[in-house]
Amino acid sequence: MFAEIITIGDELLIGQVVDTNSAWMGQELNKIGIEVLRIVSIRDREEEIMEAIDNAMERVNIVLVTGGLGPTKDDITKQTLCKYFHTELVFNEEVFENVKRVLAGKIPMNALNKSQAMVPKDCMVINNPVGSASVSWFERDGKVLVSMPGVPQEMIAVMTESVLPKLHARFQTDVIMHQTFLVQHYPESVLAEKLESWENALPECIKLAYLPKFGIIRLRLTGRGQNREEVKVLLEREKLKLEEILGEDIFSEEDTPLEVIVGELLKKKKLTVSTAESCTGGSIATRLTSIAGSSEYFNGSVVAYSNEVKMEILHVSSETLERHGAVSEETVIEMVKGAMKTLKTDCAVATSGIAGPGGGTPKKPVGTVWIAAGYKNEIHTYKQETNRGRSMNIERAGNNALLMLRDLLK
Amino acid sequence: MFAEIITIGDELLIGQVVDTNSAWMGQELNKIGIEVLRIVSIRDREEEIMEAIDNAMERVNIVLVTGGLGPTKDDITKQTLCKYFHTELVFNEEVFENVKRVLAGKIPMNALNKSQAMVPKDCMVINNPVGSASVSWFERDGKVLVSMPGVPQEMIAVMTESVLPKLHARFQTDVIMHQTFLVQHYPESVLAEKLESWENALPECIKLAYLPKFGIIRLRLTGRGQNREEVKVLLEREKLKLEEILGEDIFSEEDTPLEVIVGELLKKKKLTVSTAESCTGGSIATRLTSIAGSSEYFNGSVVAYSNEVKMEILHVSSETLERHGAVSEETVIEMVKGAMKTLKTDCAVATSGIAGPGGGTPKKPVGTVWIAAGYKNEIHTYKQETNRGRSMNIERAGNNALLMLRDLLK
Repeated sequence: MFAEIITIGDELLIGQVVDTNSAWMGQELNKIGIEVLRIVSIRDREEEIMEAIDNAMERVNIVLVTGGLGPTKDDITKQTLCKYFHTELVFNEEVFENVKRVLAGKIPMNALNKSQAMVPKDCMVINNPVGSASVSWFERDGKVLVSMPGVPQEMIAVMTESVLPKLHARFQTDVIMHQTFLVQHYPESVLAEKLESWENALPECIKLAYLPKFGIIRLRLTGRGQNREEVKVLLEREKLKLEEILGEDIFSEEDTPLEVIVGELLKKKKLTVSTAESCTGGSIATRLTSIAGSSEYFNGSVVAYSNEVKMEILHVSSETLERHGAVSEETVIEMVKGAMKTLKTDCAVATSGIAGPGGGTPKKPVGTVWIAAGYKNEIHTYKQETNRGRSMNIERAGNNALLMLRDLLK
Repeated sequence: MFAEIITIGDELLIGQVVDTNSAWMGQELNKIGIEVLRIVSIRDREEEIMEAIDNAMERVNIVLVTGGLGPTKDDITKQTLCKYFHTELVFNEEVFENVKRVLAGKIPMNALNKSQAMVPKDCMVINNPVGSASVSWFERDGKVLVSMPGVPQEMIAVMTESVLPKLHARFQTDVIMHQTFLVQHYPESVLAEKLESWENALPECIKLAYLPKFGIIRLRLTGRGQNREEVKVLLEREKLKLEEILGEDIFSEEDTPLEVIVGELLKKKKLTVSTAESCTGGSIATRLTSIAGSSEYFNGSVVAYSNEVKMEILHVSSETLERHGAVSEETVIEMVKGAMKTLKTDCAVATSGIAGPGGGTPKKPVGTVWIAAGYKNEIHTYKQETNRGRSMNIERAGNNALLMLRDLLK
């Protein structure tokens, strides 16, 4: 069963907003056996919306449209859908009640908000529990088109509560199963060479993809077929072969963020963690605390940009800073010790480097980052090199720090 | 002049990767007067790539393709382009030298890497300074198709250094100008009502769009025409009218991240800043330090998740924590004072709240966040309410903290 996603909004085309909706929708549709064939982003123009919808309705059975449902003048999706499906907008009492409920106490009701209660006549209207734009579900010739709000939290709410269950019930679908492996220690081409003969022998219905990201490669095996058990058995067989080839270099068999992997380990071992960050500027703490429930194992962090903070809060000695500099193995060792002591945790990570674009020297060029991971008395260090731009240097340092901590805890 | 972007890769359709390339490309193309009409994401399948390219080449004059150029088996863009343009792959010595240079000292050369030096015969080949996949520039019937790598850093490098300048030189383009306004204090519909009569009177060639995000609304005026001066004058005229209507509620006239706005203010006033973060977990520090040169005004942060850290490093009194709780106005006031004192800065922000999904109580439901901003002896506080999910609660709290700090410094 195939679907197409159409996202509508000038802001997507001029690049003011990154379309994160489609990726989320693709993931969730896959889980119920619906494969997304195409994602199309278009402007808020009637003729362009009409054309995109028409093409999609020819190609696939399920068309999911997001965006263009706001109360303002630039949003025209609802009117355009009426034109496409030869229907008209009518006032819907139930939707109006929902608009009132959603806005209650926040903003006064005005004519524009009221217009949110005008919905296409010949469709099933689905309420939006978290916003004022409702969902329209059209059917024609056995095909379904669903129009949803473009605000991510609203789209996610209506997809989860209504659209996904209804699609699942409405269509008979092929089984699609994915198995992801997170692999460290390999550049893509070296890994590909190592896996070549295994990959060439994969059965027709199983596909392999490489997704490299900041020093980690995600390998994704995708199986599809009509029988869940058959696909499962085939995938399982290839999984075992891959595990034999790569062994410990596979550090996770779920497409799980590192902060979750580390968090789970800490919880299991009942340990606490802290961070002492210079060039990563708190981003490792941000990643660790992005996980609900992280307060169970995360105590706190010190972002030590200035040497003064390194000395006074993390107790890095002035001698170390003078002799070896802030970006040195010696400094990150003292930082990681300082974090464990000051923040009273069982383990910690520390970073100090030159994220760039400025600040490099011949001996310590931009991109140089010293990283330490500590667990009680054991401390590992690593020197990250090669400049890939400020944000990527920071991201990679976070990945390396968390991978090092994971290895220590294993 | 219109362009279409085609991004290729199964990972986009199953949602394992968010397409951030298109937004960046849209922004940059706009700056040279090229408008993106459509963004299409498709799978690594020959017939689907052929169809998408064919449709795009009919619709627009410029087609930009990213992805599918890796050394592995799942990448087939190069071969498919050869088929579409009736040409073949040939070995290119110059590209091979570049592949060797890029890989030098990192990974050994193997057959897969060598295949990166095979390029389409009838096209202009552009070198990739940061990766091994080269760029192919095809021309047919006055139209241009450029195939680029999908890795963001590589795409950005080749676009910036080669593709954008070449497109600018190759095509005569309409002038497109944008003016963005960042507005605070308004829900979208209230703002729309306030602006309605002005918006209705806008000249034909100027369009207004609303882009709400976490408590901030970005208003974007877009003017287009053949004469730069004319468009500029028209935009300027509407800008003045809008400024008169909204006054101080416009807090920026550039589409600038808050961390940049605050950073510029701090630099101008030669002040230093720190943060004391509980529920935001270091994300405000991460935002502040994401800006190159932030070490000039950013000293450090304390992420104080546990009460112990709040007391010992930030000197929040145990009495305050006991009497009012960690999520209270009193606590964030002591946190912000503690940050200024311990981290020796002129100003600071502090947050403490219940990001969710767990941890709420009837008196302090999930979504409650107390925020303080301090500048020397002046401290402002704000209670953020309404739960919008963990990550959005955190993001909004960061926005509010930075907006409060900006107001204090103004």
